[in-house]
Amino acid sequence: MNKSAAASSLSVQGRRTAAPAISWLMATALSRPKLISLAAGFTDNATLPVGLARQLINEVLRDPRAGQPALQYGITAGENNLRRLTAGHVQKLDGTATPASAPERVIISGGSQQLLYMTLEALCDEDDIILVEDPTYFVFLGILQSRGIRARGVRLDRDGLDLAHLATVLERLEKTGELKRVKALYLITYFQNPTGTTTSREKKRKALALIKKYEAAAGHPIYLLEDAAYRELRFAGPDIPSALTLPGAASRVIYTGTYSKPFAPGVRVGFGFLPEPLLTTVQRIKGNHDFGTANLLQQILAGALASGRYDKHVAKIEKRYGQKAALMKAALAEYFPPAVEIWESGGGLYFWARLPKNISAGVKSKVFRTALKNDVIYVPGELCYAPDPSRRTPDNEMRISFGTASEANIREGIKRLGAVLQKFV
Amino acid sequence: MNKSAAASSLSVQGRRTAAPAISWLMATALSRPKLISLAAGFTDNATLPVGLARQLINEVLRDPRAGQPALQYGITAGENNLRRLTAGHVQKLDGTATPASAPERVIISGGSQQLLYMTLEALCDEDDIILVEDPTYFVFLGILQSRGIRARGVRLDRDGLDLAHLATVLERLEKTGELKRVKALYLITYFQNPTGTTTSREKKRKALALIKKYEAAAGHPIYLLEDAAYRELRFAGPDIPSALTLPGAASRVIYTGTYSKPFAPGVRVGFGFLPEPLLTTVQRIKGNHDFGTANLLQQILAGALASGRYDKHVAKIEKRYGQKAALMKAALAEYFPPAVEIWESGGGLYFWARLPKNISAGVKSKVFRTALKNDVIYVPGELCYAPDPSRRTPDNEMRISFGTASEANIREGIKRLGAVLQKFV
Repeated sequence: MNKSAAASSLSVQGRRTAAPAISWLMATALSRPKLISLAAGFTDNATLPVGLARQLINEVLRDPRAGQPALQYGITAGENNLRRLTAGHVQKLDGTATPASAPERVIISGGSQQLLYMTLEALCDEDDIILVEDPTYFVFLGILQSRGIRARGVRLDRDGLDLAHLATVLERLEKTGELKRVKALYLITYFQNPTGTTTSREKKRKALALIKKYEAAAGHPIYLLEDAAYRELRFAGPDIPSALTLPGAASRVIYTGTYSKPFAPGVRVGFGFLPEPLLTTVQRIKGNHDFGTANLLQQILAGALASGRYDKHVAKIEKRYGQKAALMKAALAEYFPPAVEIWESGGGLYFWARLPKNISAGVKSKVFRTALKNDVIYVPGELCYAPDPSRRTPDNEMRISFGTASEANIREGIKRLGAVLQKFV
Repeated sequence: MNKSAAASSLSVQGRRTAAPAISWLMATALSRPKLISLAAGFTDNATLPVGLARQLINEVLRDPRAGQPALQYGITAGENNLRRLTAGHVQKLDGTATPASAPERVIISGGSQQLLYMTLEALCDEDDIILVEDPTYFVFLGILQSRGIRARGVRLDRDGLDLAHLATVLERLEKTGELKRVKALYLITYFQNPTGTTTSREKKRKALALIKKYEAAAGHPIYLLEDAAYRELRFAGPDIPSALTLPGAASRVIYTGTYSKPFAPGVRVGFGFLPEPLLTTVQRIKGNHDFGTANLLQQILAGALASGRYDKHVAKIEKRYGQKAALMKAALAEYFPPAVEIWESGGGLYFWARLPKNISAGVKSKVFRTALKNDVIYVPGELCYAPDPSRRTPDNEMRISFGTASEANIREGIKRLGAVLQKFV
């Protein structure tokens, strides 16, 4: 039996699932040892709480009996203690407890990524539509691609979602009769990946009200899916209440968060708040995936949260990222041509750079290839745009990360990239 | 918008996914504090390696620099070191290295459950067919149910799969034109859940040859999916080479295993060996699920395997389970009516008890309800049978576990259950 016959065993999803957009970026990075990566969204190695994690684990496993639950199976939705602490944690960030942020709403997961995946499984059939920010998180687009879910892009301003454009997109979908396929609006509301924008509570309120208006025509709820992955990597400006605090949130807001980025990706624990019937459905699906995230990891986080050491650690890393962002900002001012527009953020891991519209920074562009030749790499912005036949995909943008690079490499990387841009801009 | 409209947002899968068959069993167990559970497939708390896990983690996180990789993101397929150690481990069990068991074939996952899930995603569309043992692992049936995949049962003898019946089932599927929907034969080959049977290498060879014969008519490969979850909980008899050692395995055998049961479910790490194109496809799907299992857990296992402490621990728990099994065997002989047929196993966590055919031990049976009233619970065998219109679901069987119960509770539980059976058998 030949290769194509072998492939014919695969499911539609199996055949469709594409290689991740950035897998070749990562492969390229590995093949060039001198390369400075401003592409990776990894966290800073120096911020990883090695000593703290060791301390917490030694507490969890302090004696044979007390340590047993951490090594045993648990409950699919997550340890009740961690669910309670997580609700309390988010309620503290929000400055209020709401029915939408109750402990019973929490599901603990293998990073927030797993929860995004399972939520889409519970919500979307093939050809359904998710409204996404334009641009958005490329691994989320990967899930959509794999599962045959369509994305429709909503423009993003420097202060978050373009509400007028959201109205236009919804209107257009109503006209084409596609509204009944629309299941959710996906927003990365804090220090957005890739642009760094943050969406105000007021904008979130208006966005939720707007999608609600179209529910009658859709014939079903349209959810606001708030991805708050970067919320706790905040080094400037006030925190903003989540969509869980909005009127009507209890039945329409899905919130996903993670301890991976503020604490440690290697202790992969994420969480979400879900309204019914999604809560029950996603719990059942998680039962089939893995019947619950590893208890040991959950207990590490529970110990950190309960003792206040989590908050102390977060304060430390926020300071560190603030310093790295300031360093990158200074380097950008020094080395980048003034014609490049820089979007600065109060948190997260990224700067967003926009070249003049006629200059491509895309995967196949001279800018990108020359950067690679000069041993510096960034994420071409075009990878963050959903395939959307209703608009041309912008290719003049770059996501530049200060997450993993050292201070010296941030400066040197921006210097190299600036020199490349001076040639083309 | 009312409740049914809210449900109408859900995907077909979301609406279809049923509550796990045993969730109410677990809820029942929690509501009766005096209940002795012979139902749970959990591992024995006393076997959990609390001290060893603490030791290993302290080694992994011994200093801030050495500990960083354990807390950082990793590679989707798993840490190369653990993939290499895992291949070596299985090759050692098999007594041989084959192309099918090469390190490059390994994917590390969140327990073997996650790998079973992703493999089915990669292989099966709705209405596709998986051949399963009759009875089989009920969470696997849960995945099939959720995803709309059909199961066809193949009879099980005390020495594993009934090959003649497999031939009959395949022939029948060819006649009805359904062979093109058949994607795999799922076998739990070591101390099967729920019956405890083990399948010889010769039987596995014949089964693979048999499904191969039908590939031309199917128009695609039909895989042998070998679930070896209980392989290392072996207390009697020799280990048996896996299907990875069979001729043709390199292109047709998928093998899943786990460190959860022999080491610790709370350190949830599983693994699999996959042939192309499944290997690449499942890797991509895992990228969308969680881009790799938590590194900290992977490094704990790598440390245990590399230092030989994993093997030492497994030898210890095998001994412990052997003692518990012997204890349960003696209690069964003492308290169960002779008319109940007991299937004994050389490993795993279960005895399989078959009542005379006219006596139901099912979920709604008098036997089950009386057992509950007398504070003892087992898994009704009927939950382990796929819905298969071509045969009546047997309901006269019980899965009885010695996994979690203490020695005293094993004896007392079997005594209570025996008393119930004396009334009805």
